[in-house]
Parts: sequence; structure tokens; C-alpha cells
Amino acid sequence: MHILSHSRRLRTTPFTARVEAAGVKAYTTYNHMLLPTVFRSVEEDYHHLKSAVQVWDVACERQVEVRGPDAARLVQMLTPRDLRPMVIGRCFYTPMVDETGGMLNDPVTLKLAEDRYWISIADSDLLFWIKGLAYGRVLEVDVTEPDVSPLAVQGPKAEDLVARVFGEDIRDIRFFRFREVTFGGQTMVLARSGYSRQGGFEIYCTSTALGPALWDALFEAGADLDVRPGCPNLIERIEGGLLSYGNDMTRENTPHESGLGQFCDTITAIGCCGRDALLRVAQEGPIRQIRYFSIDGTALPPCRTPWPITAGGRQIGQITSAAWSPGFATNVAIGMVRLSHWDEGTSVTIETPTGHREALVHEKHFLAA
Amino acid sequence: MHILSHSRRLRTTPFTARVEAAGVKAYTTYNHMLLPTVFRSVEEDYHHLKSAVQVWDVACERQVEVRGPDAARLVQMLTPRDLRPMVIGRCFYTPMVDETGGMLNDPVTLKLAEDRYWISIADSDLLFWIKGLAYGRVLEVDVTEPDVSPLAVQGPKAEDLVARVFGEDIRDIRFFRFREVTFGGQTMVLARSGYSRQGGFEIYCTSTALGPALWDALFEAGADLDVRPGCPNLIERIEGGLLSYGNDMTRENTPHESGLGQFCDTITAIGCCGRDALLRVAQEGPIRQIRYFSIDGTALPPCRTPWPITAGGRQIGQITSAAWSPGFATNVAIGMVRLSHWDEGTSVTIETPTGHREALVHEKHFLAA
Repeated sequence: MHILSHSRRLRTTPFTARVEAAGVKAYTTYNHMLLPTVFRSVEEDYHHLKSAVQVWDVACERQVEVRGPDAARLVQMLTPRDLRPMVIGRCFYTPMVDETGGMLNDPVTLKLAEDRYWISIADSDLLFWIKGLAYGRVLEVDVTEPDVSPLAVQGPKAEDLVARVFGEDIRDIRFFRFREVTFGGQTMVLARSGYSRQGGFEIYCTSTALGPALWDALFEAGADLDVRPGCPNLIERIEGGLLSYGNDMTRENTPHESGLGQFCDTITAIGCCGRDALLRVAQEGPIRQIRYFSIDGTALPPCRTPWPITAGGRQIGQITSAAWSPGFATNVAIGMVRLSHWDEGTSVTIETPTGHREALVHEKHFLAA
Repeated sequence: MHILSHSRRLRTTPFTARVEAAGVKAYTTYNHMLLPTVFRSVEEDYHHLKSAVQVWDVACERQVEVRGPDAARLVQMLTPRDLRPMVIGRCFYTPMVDETGGMLNDPVTLKLAEDRYWISIADSDLLFWIKGLAYGRVLEVDVTEPDVSPLAVQGPKAEDLVARVFGEDIRDIRFFRFREVTFGGQTMVLARSGYSRQGGFEIYCTSTALGPALWDALFEAGADLDVRPGCPNLIERIEGGLLSYGNDMTRENTPHESGLGQFCDTITAIGCCGRDALLRVAQEGPIRQIRYFSIDGTALPPCRTPWPITAGGRQIGQITSAAWSPGFATNVAIGMVRLSHWDEGTSVTIETPTGHREALVHEKHFLAA
């Protein structure tokens, strides 16, 4: 166990004072910002997330705002997903790649207006890539990091809680849709989305000054719902097959390897950087791909470096995230494995820090219907 | 105090196993990688750094390699420093800015060949900006993050230790010069540089596999020099006026505000992004600038958010880094202050988390000759 040394460089959020008053125990860093990881314990937080409602400080999901006459053209340059069907009010999960087809980020993109987008980013300075492209191509856009800090409300009672604060109308918001709401006189964005499989919303708080009041409003409204502070939960997100950029895929990987081919329209996404590099893998498929794993034995330590997956003594892949699942009474894991061994039910060996373990390959995540 | 949650996304280094065996107590994260911050205590590490020699895992100073026929042109696009005088074997401290003149990073750039540079970066994904520019401008370059992990040897006995491992010749390497050396049959780069004012070298380890052997060779050779594991020391770097990107300056700031005007040749750096935006501030000077401060009273907590600097009840600047200095028996600090209050010896008030404190402005850092 290591202490995290605080500094301005590891930015606090509009909610940090509340998170720390609530007793956060551990952090990770994400986009140069603090992201809570544990309140009571990862297991206790997990059980609560699945049964009640939590408020998550995910301000570290920073926004890159792209605005101007060339905004739509620039955003299409970023992703092999065809954005032509995207209308205002939609969230699109958008793998973003460099000129080699290597993943740079896997954000959710929100279309706010015909000439204005928010790109809600995973952990890399995507702002720099987009600014570089815009400057290099002399595009008419402004690319900025606005004062927007997402606060997630997740769990089976999330809709009830959000309805109490923002009104019953919000129940009509469909998955990956958003609408504008008002809080404290300020226009904010409310989306049905979030990094869990328990359902819920993300409130894009557009004012640092209003952060604590927004937090407090949710806790006051939800007292009888057992609302608690929470955070993306390692166990639940692995059970649910939610990938983490930097953990489960990096610049080394294509979206197709990352199991995100369903979010790519490489052939029709004209203008996308990396399209040439991806055309073959889009047509023929990758030779390795994300899979889910159940690993035998007792609880494993966190996966700090990739654990080799082997079969017959040869390495055929690697595990990149793992956790003990109380719900499934096994270690659940995410990794990438070669096509020779990626079919459902294949037996493989994992070289963990605590020795070799037997494991099974799963094509669907543990919470899949 | 908060625990840091480990994951693959917070990358380990070639030296992490040694650092943890040596009892590292705390980390920060830097370029998505672990950077040690405390071994015995910040104060004990500080006294030792000033009297002996330390080996620092600064692998988080990742390299961006720019290689190809357009490499020199692209590197000049990145910085308002005129790179024409740069010859092979030189390290240049190079503030890098965006099209608005806002700082994106403050790396040390190494010229390895006429068509090959390493940019040894501070904490931001500068790779993304450079790749974006190269792609946008259709330049003939390859921009990559190579397998290069700096290991610093710092302290008054650093030269003796490095000479024992790499030979007496290395004593001839002048400040901010480098040469190639061989370790374990592998060509590496040895520069006289480092993030302290105690003197020393940085070994650019070009092989993850050789990292532990390089660490061990330094500890074996330096046993009688009291060599210890160390890390950039908060107290010493503030005393020495060494800026930290993300702490003391951000994208909000120009190099001139950041006190780095001496490293800018904005008028002659033809082709630099942001040159238009910087021409006026380069000629007229900034209206706020980095200064050093001694803050009265007892030891202050870490500076997690900027502390306002006030005079007559009005805010005139902010403190961004602070630490108790045993050597100077005061709190030493770095901040930015308006020109009305930046002269040597000006009295100002600092709004710290523990209340108002009186402070004095210093134009030179505490270790200046």
C-alpha cells in the first residue's frame, strides 16, 4: 500500500471537499485529476451500488469542447464511427484512433448543436491531439476544456433520485440521450449514461461554484433511498465488461481488437484518421480480441502489469484487469487473447503474481442478459 | 492521507520492483506512470540529497521521439526557443506552447542526430499534440514513445558514482550535454542534467529488461558513498526554483509569465506555433510572473489548490507550490504575482488553508548563487 502525494497537478474537483468529508479512502488519478476508488471497501461499495444509489465524482471525465464551422468535420476525423446519424441530444460511444489505427481514447461524444460537441474523455490528453489536428489542418474551430464536471448517479434507485431533484420528466430520457436541465439558475446537461451496468445518469455540472450545492441536493433528496458516495467500482465494471482505456486497451490496440468493432463503420467513416490503417482489420477481423475470464482460486491482487495468458506453454494473450467477484464467487477478469483460444469455454492458464491459475474464456461479460 | 489504488493504467517502470523493495512510501502519478515521492521522509530524503547521492526512478519523464526528414522543422514548430544553434549532443530546455501561446509542456529536448530528437516530457501527453501537428501538416516524420526510461543520479557525490559505473571520461560531460554510453551491451544516453540543484546525471535507459541491472550496478558501485533511493524532492526543488508543469504553470500561462522568457526567442523562432500570440508579451513583458516566496509561521500543508496572494484586500496572484524548508527555517513557495507586487522584498499576504500568513517576494530562488 502506498500513499498518494497530493499537489495542484493532481487536480481537485468541484466535489472533492464533499468526497473527502464523506471519508474517501483511496484515489486513482485520471486526466490529471483525482478519481475516488474506495469509500467503505471495494466489496461493500459493490454491494451497495447493486442495491441502492450512489453519487460519483467523475469530474475527471473532462470535456473537450469542439465548436465552430468545421466542428462536425473535425469530430468525424477523430473516429471510425460514422457520425452522420448523430442528432442533437445524442451521446455516441466513439473509439478514437491515430493515423495507425491505434486507440487514443474511447470517449462518449455529445452533440450539443450542429457546430458544437463535447467529447467526454477517458484517461489521455485527447485535447492535445484534437488541437494539433485543428491547427495542422487550419480548421475553423475552437478546441477547449470547458468548466464542466460530470457527477454520476448510479444504481437501481438512480432514476428515482434524479427525478426528485430534476423533475419527473427526466424518466423519459432514453439511454445515451441527454437534455438540458437547470440547477441553481445554471443550464446543465443530464444524460442517461454512466460507467456501470446498474443504470443511472450523468449530470454535466457546468459550474465549479455550484458543485457542492449539486452534491448536497442529491444527498438531501435521497436520504431515504440510502444514497451514498461511490465511484466506478472495479468489481462491477469487470463483471459488466466495461473497458478501461490505459488498462484494457492502449495505443497498441485497434478498436477491433478491443472488441469495439460494433462501434466502427470504418468503410463509411470517410475522413477519419487511421481509416486506411483499419480497413483490412475491419474487413477481415482482428487476430486477437478482448474477452472475459473467470480465474480459479482465491482472490487475486490488483493487476498492475499484464498477466500472460498461456496455453501449452505458449503465450496467447494477457489479462489487464482482475478482481474477486463476491457475486460470482470467482475472480473475474478482462484481457486480450488470440483467435485460436477466444471461443466460449476455452481453458487457458494465467500467470498471476501468485502463480499459475486455470481460467475459462467467456465471449460475453458476466452481467450480459 | 489517501491510498493510491494501483492498476495497469498507472504504469510501473523498469525500476519499480527495486523502488518497492527499497521501501518507497508514497507516489504521485506522472505521464500515466508511477513517480516515487517519499522514501524515509521528505525531510530526511532532502538532507541526504544535499549531502550524498541518490538514484531516482524518473522513468515517467517519457520520451517523444521525432524522427525523419521533417523532424527539425516539426520540433521548431513546438517551441519559441530558436533551435538553430542546437548541435548534436545538446540538451535544450524548451518551453512548448499551443497556438495561443499557452504552455503545453516544458521538456528538455535532446538532439540525437540531424533528423532525430528526443523530447523528455513533463506531465502532459505531448505525444498527442506532436502527432496531431505532424498528421495535420502531412510532415515526413515518425512520432513515437520509445522504450526509454530515465534514471537520475543526483547529489554532490553523483559524478563520483557515475564515473565508477561508466568510466572517468564522463567527468568531461558539461551541463546539458549528453553522450552515448554502453551498459549491458546496450547503447544508452548519459546527460549531465536532472531535476535538482545538487548536480548529477540522467541515464536514459534504453531497455526495460536492463532496468534492474542498471539500478543494481549503481547501488553496488556506490555502497561506500551512502547511495540511497530518492526522488525529486519537494523542498529542494522549491528552494531551487525548479518549476513543475501542472503545478506552477499550466495551459493558462505563457512562457513569459512562467519566468521562462530567457528560453524564448519569439522573434527569431520562425515557424513556432503560437509565435503570433506571443510577440507582444515577448516585447513588452508579462503583467504577472513567477516569483519565489518565504511564508511566515509554522509548516504549511501541501498546496493542493492555488492559494490566493493578496495585498490591501485585493488578489494579486497565487501560490502553487509550498513546503517547509529545514535549511532556511521558513516555508518556501513558488507562485505567480502581478507586476505591481513582484519586486524583491515586497510584503504580501497569503490565504493558506490554515489562515492568512505574511510573506516576502523574492526575485531569485533560494539556492541562487
